[in-house]
Amino acid sequence: MSSDYKYTQFFNALQSLIEIDSNEMLYYSELLSVVRFKKGELLLKAGETCKNIFFINQGLCRTFFLNAKGEENTFHFTMEKEFITDYESFVAVEPAYFSIQALEPVEAVVMTYHTVHDGYKNLQNGEKLGRLLAEKYLFMFMNKVRDIYTEDAITRYRKMSKRYPSILQRVPQHLVASYLNITPVHLSRLKGII
Amino acid sequence: MSSDYKYTQFFNALQSLIEIDSNEMLYYSELLSVVRFKKGELLLKAGETCKNIFFINQGLCRTFFLNAKGEENTFHFTMEKEFITDYESFVAVEPAYFSIQALEPVEAVVMTYHTVHDGYKNLQNGEKLGRLLAEKYLFMFMNKVRDIYTEDAITRYRKMSKRYPSILQRVPQHLVASYLNITPVHLSRLKGII
Repeated sequence: MSSDYKYTQFFNALQSLIEIDSNEMLYYSELLSVVRFKKGELLLKAGETCKNIFFINQGLCRTFFLNAKGEENTFHFTMEKEFITDYESFVAVEPAYFSIQALEPVEAVVMTYHTVHDGYKNLQNGEKLGRLLAEKYLFMFMNKVRDIYTEDAITRYRKMSKRYPSILQRVPQHLVASYLNITPVHLSRLKGII
Repeated sequence: MSSDYKYTQFFNALQSLIEIDSNEMLYYSELLSVVRFKKGELLLKAGETCKNIFFINQGLCRTFFLNAKGEENTFHFTMEKEFITDYESFVAVEPAYFSIQALEPVEAVVMTYHTVHDGYKNLQNGEKLGRLLAEKYLFMFMNKVRDIYTEDAITRYRKMSKRYPSILQRVPQHLVASYLNITPVHLSRLKGII
């Protein structure tokens, strides 16, 4: 059914985390929606409250923030079949620290605050799903902290290439450099070495 | 009862997160234990699998790691009524990135992997508890990432003093400096300014 098709990847992702039966999927799909963003548009703007968890059906986003100098720092990329939000803003209903921007035309499944909390209550494994999503997000942050403190630029580059195999084809070089916390010149040099 | 007393703070902390009735507390207390560490002892050593979530009844710990230069970086302090673990190592059963050290004599309630997973299964709100603990840990990391990228040393110092009011009395200055990612000399100067 066409109405189900747009949620296929989403429910596949859920099924990789928890048991969820077809009745629950039918129930839960009523609480979902699909939203499209043009290249360059913001899914979330820092300073506003993050009201959604997005699941990327198609496209690529970056999460960024402004550093102490007021420059944009690219913190994270999110591709197809991945979730993205500003989790703290979403959970605590506080102004977001991060902005999320579409780097390509993006189609995303939207879980609102209401949808997520309905899931906690009404899906048999809703709280477990919440725990596993929080853990995923946490591991991403732990990984990032490890990168900042202990990995050199080559190691960060290799990890990035492994995690995002198509990233260099899909993302402007200056954003890749920003993600790696190096200059574009340094990135060119790294690409020459590897 | 004396056997309950050692878990009072622990169950108070749980009750601030989830509903848990007295039968559940009685059941769950059977899966807990209390462990004591001398000042300087390690609760967890980097490279080993983290098998426990600790709840600090008494004392103070620091979480640290080795940076790219092989120097110890103090990442986090944990005081009374707080939980501490290497969450990724614990969940994924992988070698820990962090070490956790007692900076004072420490008494901690121990939740083993088995205890935590038993809670997911048998406590009415066990998965919710898991989600909220993962979220707490995540927020700590997000906070840390924000600090690294966007706060200056004075702001980091003020946030630290607010979060850990007694820290300057309880922790050697060089560890506070390490936590703030500044030199001890820089820390002395900051204390003069504020």
